[in-house]
Amino acid sequence: MKYTIFGESHGPAIGVVLEGVPAGLELDLDFIRAQLARRAPGQNAMTTARKEADEPELLSGVFEGRTTGGPLCAVIFNTDTRSRDYAKLKDLPRPGHADYAGFVRYRGCNDYRGGGHFSGRLTAPLVFAGAVAQQVLGGHGVTVAARISNVAGIPDPTPEEMEGAILAAKADGDSVGGRIACAVTGLPAGLGDPDFGCNVEGIFSQYLFAVPAVKAVGFGLGTGFAEIRGSQANDPFYMDGGTVRTRTNHAGGINGGITNGMPVTFEVTIRPTPSIGREQDTVDLSTGSDVKLSVTGRHDPCILPRAVPVIEAAAALAACQVLGI
Amino acid sequence: MKYTIFGESHGPAIGVVLEGVPAGLELDLDFIRAQLARRAPGQNAMTTARKEADEPELLSGVFEGRTTGGPLCAVIFNTDTRSRDYAKLKDLPRPGHADYAGFVRYRGCNDYRGGGHFSGRLTAPLVFAGAVAQQVLGGHGVTVAARISNVAGIPDPTPEEMEGAILAAKADGDSVGGRIACAVTGLPAGLGDPDFGCNVEGIFSQYLFAVPAVKAVGFGLGTGFAEIRGSQANDPFYMDGGTVRTRTNHAGGINGGITNGMPVTFEVTIRPTPSIGREQDTVDLSTGSDVKLSVTGRHDPCILPRAVPVIEAAAALAACQVLGI
Amino acid sequence: MKYTIFGESHGPAIGVVLEGVPAGLELDLDFIRAQLARRAPGQNAMTTARKEADEPELLSGVFEGRTTGGPLCAVIFNTDTRSRDYAKLKDLPRPGHADYAGFVRYRGCNDYRGGGHFSGRLTAPLVFAGAVAQQVLGGHGVTVAARISNVAGIPDPTPEEMEGAILAAKADGDSVGGRIACAVTGLPAGLGDPDFGCNVEGIFSQYLFAVPAVKAVGFGLGTGFAEIRGSQANDPFYMDGGTVRTRTNHAGGINGGITNGMPVTFEVTIRPTPSIGREQDTVDLSTGSDVKLSVTGRHDPCILPRAVPVIEAAAALAACQVLGI
Amino acid sequence: MKYTIFGESHGPAIGVVLEGVPAGLELDLDFIRAQLARRAPGQNAMTTARKEADEPELLSGVFEGRTTGGPLCAVIFNTDTRSRDYAKLKDLPRPGHADYAGFVRYRGCNDYRGGGHFSGRLTAPLVFAGAVAQQVLGGHGVTVAARISNVAGIPDPTPEEMEGAILAAKADGDSVGGRIACAVTGLPAGLGDPDFGCNVEGIFSQYLFAVPAVKAVGFGLGTGFAEIRGSQANDPFYMDGGTVRTRTNHAGGINGGITNGMPVTFEVTIRPTPSIGREQDTVDLSTGSDVKLSVTGRHDPCILPRAVPVIEAAAALAACQVLGI
Repeated sequence: MKYTIFGESHGPAIGVVLEGVPAGLELDLDFIRAQLARRAPGQNAMTTARKEADEPELLSGVFEGRTTGGPLCAVIFNTDTRSRDYAKLKDLPRPGHADYAGFVRYRGCNDYRGGGHFSGRLTAPLVFAGAVAQQVLGGHGVTVAARISNVAGIPDPTPEEMEGAILAAKADGDSVGGRIACAVTGLPAGLGDPDFGCNVEGIFSQYLFAVPAVKAVGFGLGTGFAEIRGSQANDPFYMDGGTVRTRTNHAGGINGGITNGMPVTFEVTIRPTPSIGREQDTVDLSTGSDVKLSVTGRHDPCILPRAVPVIEAAAALAACQVLGI
Repeated sequence: MKYTIFGESHGPAIGVVLEGVPAGLELDLDFIRAQLARRAPGQNAMTTARKEADEPELLSGVFEGRTTGGPLCAVIFNTDTRSRDYAKLKDLPRPGHADYAGFVRYRGCNDYRGGGHFSGRLTAPLVFAGAVAQQVLGGHGVTVAARISNVAGIPDPTPEEMEGAILAAKADGDSVGGRIACAVTGLPAGLGDPDFGCNVEGIFSQYLFAVPAVKAVGFGLGTGFAEIRGSQANDPFYMDGGTVRTRTNHAGGINGGITNGMPVTFEVTIRPTPSIGREQDTVDLSTGSDVKLSVTGRHDPCILPRAVPVIEAAAALAACQVLGI
Repeated sequence: MKYTIFGESHGPAIGVVLEGVPAGLELDLDFIRAQLARRAPGQNAMTTARKEADEPELLSGVFEGRTTGGPLCAVIFNTDTRSRDYAKLKDLPRPGHADYAGFVRYRGCNDYRGGGHFSGRLTAPLVFAGAVAQQVLGGHGVTVAARISNVAGIPDPTPEEMEGAILAAKADGDSVGGRIACAVTGLPAGLGDPDFGCNVEGIFSQYLFAVPAVKAVGFGLGTGFAEIRGSQANDPFYMDGGTVRTRTNHAGGINGGITNGMPVTFEVTIRPTPSIGREQDTVDLSTGSDVKLSVTGRHDPCILPRAVPVIEAAAALAACQVLGI
Repeated sequence: MKYTIFGESHGPAIGVVLEGVPAGLELDLDFIRAQLARRAPGQNAMTTARKEADEPELLSGVFEGRTTGGPLCAVIFNTDTRSRDYAKLKDLPRPGHADYAGFVRYRGCNDYRGGGHFSGRLTAPLVFAGAVAQQVLGGHGVTVAARISNVAGIPDPTPEEMEGAILAAKADGDSVGGRIACAVTGLPAGLGDPDFGCNVEGIFSQYLFAVPAVKAVGFGLGTGFAEIRGSQANDPFYMDGGTVRTRTNHAGGINGGITNGMPVTFEVTIRPTPSIGREQDTVDLSTGSDVKLSVTGRHDPCILPRAVPVIEAAAALAACQVLGI
């Protein structure tokens, strides 16, 4: 299964083409919509006020409710676009955003409105693709589940702690980041290879870093491996009935790039939303001078809550590749 | 440029095929040997006692001292192999190693001696390939430099601190991990794409996770992004002569998957060497029973010192891909 | 540049996503429409009576008339779909078509109406993609031009001969095939590599065989190389001003998988349209019995005239890959 | 399974790395040697007098006689190299050869001795890889068999006709080409996809055009499809017991890019050996002037006899990819 995302935040539509979907799958549209709803904007005071129905239209790959095995294209037409919010940003790259890098990369021709193709809005088709992947994985006994493991430096925050930290940042015209932990259960031992392009950590990381704002990925104990000794880090084997298991899962289910039958676990770090109300230093690309910038428009003070289904989507697509689907 | 590594720790040879090397490069064998020497075993009390000359033989791709543009194959023949050390490990997977995952993956047929193809010894051909890549990058004004940023939980350790921590672990029949920071300078702004398979973080991470023992990768502030606010995280732009720069480089030179002209910086976490002398729990795959295991043989109590040129190699190969070389 | 085609003949829409289009290209929609018109059905008595406007809608990748550098999605909504023509074919695979192979491949779930994703109609988005590629190539001085070189066994037929052969077959409830010759001019010498995955013949052939009904591809003299001697086949070199050229171009501009600066020339053979009115033997997949079948519905007695821009499209996309675009 | 070939005709060695070989295969070295022997030079008056033992040495991927599942590297060291034969060719590109294209591609740095990496000698490691692939295929009930179908324009020549045509050309200081037909039996119906990169014809063609001197590839009737009508071209289906078969196999076992369960058949055209003794026109790249050239040294007046196992090798590797091995 291979996905290709297209679209710009304020263009006609965003969407995805999924190739290699197994034929005959009865698409669970309720599950797809539920995943999209978890990601959708406008849910509460912590998220952007932009409202999008995010109802996917299936252009291909589904016939009489089942997948055909051909490429599946789903499109979400953009509706609530207020482009004038962004017009002044054309020459003033927002710090922390891809505006400047994209300006150079695309010779000043990318759609600057709302970040264009860089917009977090493009994660909606990713969630669509991931939901299909999760359904496919379900048929193989594989599940994917993510949760917020850190917000604004608070580990495993309660809802109240999380809301408090986010709204405090919002009140300051600022934003916060955090971490999302994810577990993929049900992958059998013996998938992957140690070599470049085939190792399970490398495969997952490529999907995860394709999610905007992800800046770090660690498997099992992740960065924590630096602080402990081998005797603590190694996962002891034992027999559980006829099955080999490990008593701990510090390795995150992967040894030498190959699954060992334990859940594949990882944590991603998501940077604070770069769009903040506070005044920042930037440059005017049309004049080559230093200027001040305050980003207005609608944005989230923290994207963690909405990013959870996105990480699940990326993990599900990675798990499909690992399984050879 | 594409690399393919082959070989087993105790087989006839290890090596690498590098495809896409630009023609006409006068191979700097002194630099290649210097990088291999940094990685070589037997340097001091902190490293395994195994001695290997690690002298690469060029089988193809070089003619009259210059690269031909055809696939370049370099081979290192194994000499100091003491296989009996490993014979008893055939049925007893070492905790933390790929023995069990590899046993399932390869149906019990992989070469168990010294970890076979999983051995850290396979990083020698990787360093060879990376050294060629570094030479190619030099022609584009790109440099790669890594350093140990953490050992056993000690940030930026002095040589004395590092040696102390490593030898203390060794004395306990144990091992320690750490982190390596790396900077790639000279990459111009505007390389990469936000999409899957093309974004710079995803490309680097795939090379880095192909290095054995790497369990986490973070760009710029990495996991630190979870603890700060957007106003602290964003890198303010300013004009430096005619060039757009950022005052800080928290993003590690990458925005939206595209280089922004600042150095690409990242940190990898390397797990403690799984081979430790202390007794551990494991299973006997031939009888299906729980057993105790003490790993003898030669191994490093900490691979960080030898891993620095390996991370440079992986980063150099990634940088070549990002540059389209 | 990479293309991904989606859609089914009688589904909601067909389309294509083009990745890697250079940013800043002012799309020449007139040229795109002209190429689509050459491929469109309903042109005359030699083509199917199905009428489709084939007007592409741009969903992404274009902003203010220029390409953004992001994925470009173009969609053509299906309008003139008469599905009942095909309902009876569900269980009766048409000889020469992909019905049976697709039935097995997709577990009976593919959209059987009008061939579904196998339909020649899917060449419309391919022509769209190719037209963009041709425009990009134009900026590099590269042109692509194809022509019918054989219809029904008649080499280089005049329009009258062609029409005569096609209408004769149509009158018999039958169909004819033929050949299309194509030349790509302007590719500089020194592109490609001899090795698998990189050689120019291999690259072109992969694009060409992705065109439905193409069953043979030959470069330069193609199959004619079997009948001549080396002294006749070799293209003698000579100096033309400061440029090395060959007096003949039997090799089709490619030696050892690498362009030699002469036009890349090739010929493809296109099988006769499998949809014919005459009664044929087939099987009923629902009962497992032998049955007779007469294919009704709308179809071309010869697709050669409409296939010319399709071959140009495939060649243009291949040339972009060869050029590293 | 993926193969990477390296080496130059007159360098230290040629070889191949095969990735993805299933673990646990007992390598049939007798079969490998037999295939290599069919390709080896020096067999009779029709082939080059160069003598090479072509004995492969296994550097990796095999342990105790069985494949480990890791990359398998096999090397053939060059022995009978007479480089002075080629020294004068450095600046005089041989017509029909890749000398000039390679000179431009590799900036004059490729190894010109004996064609370097372009040499037909590089088909020896390809045959090695193909022999392993054939053994793997055997475990899936798939066989590959090729035969000469045309020499010098003579269809299905008898040994006497073939020898006559080849020796006549040799006597004239000339060479001849021909065709090789190949059948892959045992591939089940339902493999492949119609889309670019996945269709069976595209996959096979990429492997086949990677064989030096192959200039045309046709499936089933191939170019013959241009001369017949649809009613003749279509393969009628019938029930054979519970199995769907076709009475003819004009499509070469492939419809819409997907296998239909019949043997996959194709024919490749191989150009006459470009190395001929007769005087030819060429240029002197060092002076930019037109000159005459007579190619001396050892070469085959016709490579068809030795190319048969090479085509089998390419087909076997393609079949593995189609099967997802």
